[in-house]
Amino acid sequence: MTIEIERRFLLKNNNWRALAGEPETMRQGYLSVEKERTIRVRIIGNRAWLTLKGYISDVARSEFEYEIPLPHAETMMQTMCPFKLEKRRYKIDYRGFVFEIDEYFGENAPLIVAELELPNEDAAFAKPEWLGEEITSDGKFTNAYLSKHPYSEWGGR
Amino acid sequence: MTIEIERRFLLKNNNWRALAGEPETMRQGYLSVEKERTIRVRIIGNRAWLTLKGYISDVARSEFEYEIPLPHAETMMQTMCPFKLEKRRYKIDYRGFVFEIDEYFGENAPLIVAELELPNEDAAFAKPEWLGEEITSDGKFTNAYLSKHPYSEWGGR
Repeated sequence: MTIEIERRFLLKNNNWRALAGEPETMRQGYLSVEKERTIRVRIIGNRAWLTLKGYISDVARSEFEYEIPLPHAETMMQTMCPFKLEKRRYKIDYRGFVFEIDEYFGENAPLIVAELELPNEDAAFAKPEWLGEEITSDGKFTNAYLSKHPYSEWGGR
Repeated sequence: MTIEIERRFLLKNNNWRALAGEPETMRQGYLSVEKERTIRVRIIGNRAWLTLKGYISDVARSEFEYEIPLPHAETMMQTMCPFKLEKRRYKIDYRGFVFEIDEYFGENAPLIVAELELPNEDAAFAKPEWLGEEITSDGKFTNAYLSKHPYSEWGGR
């Protein structure tokens, strides 16, 4: 098990794109979407993972991840995952930290979210000028929530 | 993925005990208990597995099983599984088929259920005289349901 400490932000502008490398395309399906436990299948290219996340706080989650055979993941995705999403993930090294920027497809477009993994909840980090409002404590921006309630259907925000 | 075809029965009497070998003790926790998908952690001795089951019919279920490190399973069991149960499993070879007999502990005592895995839904098999009522289509006798609604609380059956 690992403890994942993560803060999440909206983007203020598109200046991050100039710093980003080639993105990876991720397909994710959810077998369970609850605050205390989310169970996710993730496919990137020809590799796949099954990931279980528990809740510690809005910032910290316990995480168990296992690589699984791609055909298993495809079958799970098709037959067992009521909720799915697709996104492109860009990575940006910025003053000693790696920002992961997720650009959502389909029903969750045009949402873009930046994630920052930290060594502890209070770790200081330099904020790039393109980083917008923090949404760490807003459960609506979790992938699990988005898979169930796509961003394009929120209306109004 | 495997397809598990299984019929389940109550026991008519205790004559099966004379045929049974040493049982294994199993602890099971459930991360998700839905008809279309159950997600189970199972611990036997110092080994553990994460198992996902999908629904095909009352008799047939798709199954994905992965062995996981015991400490992961213990942490999942303690922090992520709202529903748990414990049972002793006996195996009996009977005329070419293996009956697995589960004797439940704790809140699910004194329930005993026999399971028979079959090569297909219509496979013929010899019924031992100790085999009772078939409960394959009765969702109440699934481990997932029992973990949530223990047998001792049913009252009246």
